[in-house]
Amino acid sequence: MGGIVVVGQVGRDLVLEVDGVPPEGGAAPVRRRRELLGGKGANQAVGCRQLGARAALVAVVGADAAGADALAAAAADGIDVTGVVRRDGAATALLVDVVGPPGVRRLLEDVPEEVLLRPDDVRAAAALLGGADAVLLQLQQPGPSVAEALRAVAPGSLVVADGAPDDERVRELVLDRADAVRADTAETAALTGRAPGDTAGTVRAARELLGRGPRVVALASPEGADVVAWPGGHVVLPHLEPDPVDPTGGGDAFVAALAVGLLHGEEPGTAARWAAVASAQVAGTAGGRPGLSPELVRRQAPRG
Amino acid sequence: MGGIVVVGQVGRDLVLEVDGVPPEGGAAPVRRRRELLGGKGANQAVGCRQLGARAALVAVVGADAAGADALAAAAADGIDVTGVVRRDGAATALLVDVVGPPGVRRLLEDVPEEVLLRPDDVRAAAALLGGADAVLLQLQQPGPSVAEALRAVAPGSLVVADGAPDDERVRELVLDRADAVRADTAETAALTGRAPGDTAGTVRAARELLGRGPRVVALASPEGADVVAWPGGHVVLPHLEPDPVDPTGGGDAFVAALAVGLLHGEEPGTAARWAAVASAQVAGTAGGRPGLSPELVRRQAPRG
Repeated sequence: MGGIVVVGQVGRDLVLEVDGVPPEGGAAPVRRRRELLGGKGANQAVGCRQLGARAALVAVVGADAAGADALAAAAADGIDVTGVVRRDGAATALLVDVVGPPGVRRLLEDVPEEVLLRPDDVRAAAALLGGADAVLLQLQQPGPSVAEALRAVAPGSLVVADGAPDDERVRELVLDRADAVRADTAETAALTGRAPGDTAGTVRAARELLGRGPRVVALASPEGADVVAWPGGHVVLPHLEPDPVDPTGGGDAFVAALAVGLLHGEEPGTAARWAAVASAQVAGTAGGRPGLSPELVRRQAPRG
Repeated sequence: MGGIVVVGQVGRDLVLEVDGVPPEGGAAPVRRRRELLGGKGANQAVGCRQLGARAALVAVVGADAAGADALAAAAADGIDVTGVVRRDGAATALLVDVVGPPGVRRLLEDVPEEVLLRPDDVRAAAALLGGADAVLLQLQQPGPSVAEALRAVAPGSLVVADGAPDDERVRELVLDRADAVRADTAETAALTGRAPGDTAGTVRAARELLGRGPRVVALASPEGADVVAWPGGHVVLPHLEPDPVDPTGGGDAFVAALAVGLLHGEEPGTAARWAAVASAQVAGTAGGRPGLSPELVRRQAPRG
């Protein structure tokens, strides 16, 4: 089992469980509060680590106490943080996850521009990226930094891309190099130029993207399922958690488990089932932090 | 100018300015984020200090990093924090103040029971309370702790009470001893047994409360004004900030300025006008932290 490098966001995840959002001018008591390591990059790295992979982060935090806390928490999770930049004068990203009533989530996102990756930050982590067995690339990061990361990846390593770059040129670079691409419904529209209206349309969109480079394409359908397609077939995976507490982090766990499965040499259909189980686990708890294990995904993943 | 001891809540105030609260399942970017010393007690102590009084706090924070930060911030503001307990195993209170669009505020309040004052905490601060020229008492704290604080206050010192105790016996103790009482509309209903429907009714409620002990009664009217009454008369002070950004902390600044004014020996009508100016200043900015000065309240307070 080799190492996975996650290129993306690291921040603080403040999870506030409430009975509901108060009306204008009102107040609501917080039933439960947790402050966790968060951000899509950290969530994915933690998921990879929990599934048995070595994991490293390429990301930016502030030179504030929250940044120090986030790095310490990631290190305590066994994640290599040598590729994380602490930016002077920047505030670490804060993601406030207001959950309540159960299943209803609202996010207040403060991701200052200063904690997005710059090409220089990625170049400084070139050795880490070049030595990775797999790279998980979050396309919410600026296009030039994504392009820089793609340049640093070794030819034989697995590339899993999450999202849709705004820039058309970067989009083509990603589709050309990525082994696997994951997108939600809005990102699917950005990648293909139109939003699928149902699951059948999502399967068609996945087939179209397979023709543009990747060997595995995972798209969320607007009907509450995940479609995972590869040249020889596809699976439609309805969401496994019938009563989700909080969808935050579900997509990140999906990507992490998909990457670990593919890196293990599993068939795309098997890796997809691991991903669906991982996503359901996170959606079943408040906050974006996964609580995965290899046993969980192997035991619960339905057979194809 | 003597010292004011504030008995109340200290915590973190996380102010998030957004364009609006996202719909269920949605996300909204935070336009501006600030993390400040907060809680009604801290806000009142900061206000007293800014208006030139010596100020001390009797309060409880957790033995966590947030508690250490809150104490350091209060000390940096020149507040005596020797009466603040750091409770092992408790989490410092967190007040999330979601502001947006301007003027619309929602509070998510996490005040764990462990950071409410216990009678022992108040007894430990008896010397501080007994030596105070004035005590500002927040009646959101548990009744037995409020009663303990009243026992510790020296006979000649000024007592300003803010709110309405749930417990009837404590309510009578407070009305009997307090020189001044401040209440919002809900608290007025708790103190008098009925909610005034308009400003005239609020004046009648203030007169009734004057008959029960205090020499100054300040009540918010349901029509957006503050009524301040004393045995010789009353003033009705319409809110001075026509375009409030965030009402958080307005009531705390009101109480602080009223207390400082009365302690200075100002007439109740003058102290009331200081209070109205202080409240408007805080309502004109996001977050509960005041930005007061003696010059501000003296210059802007309208003559009676």
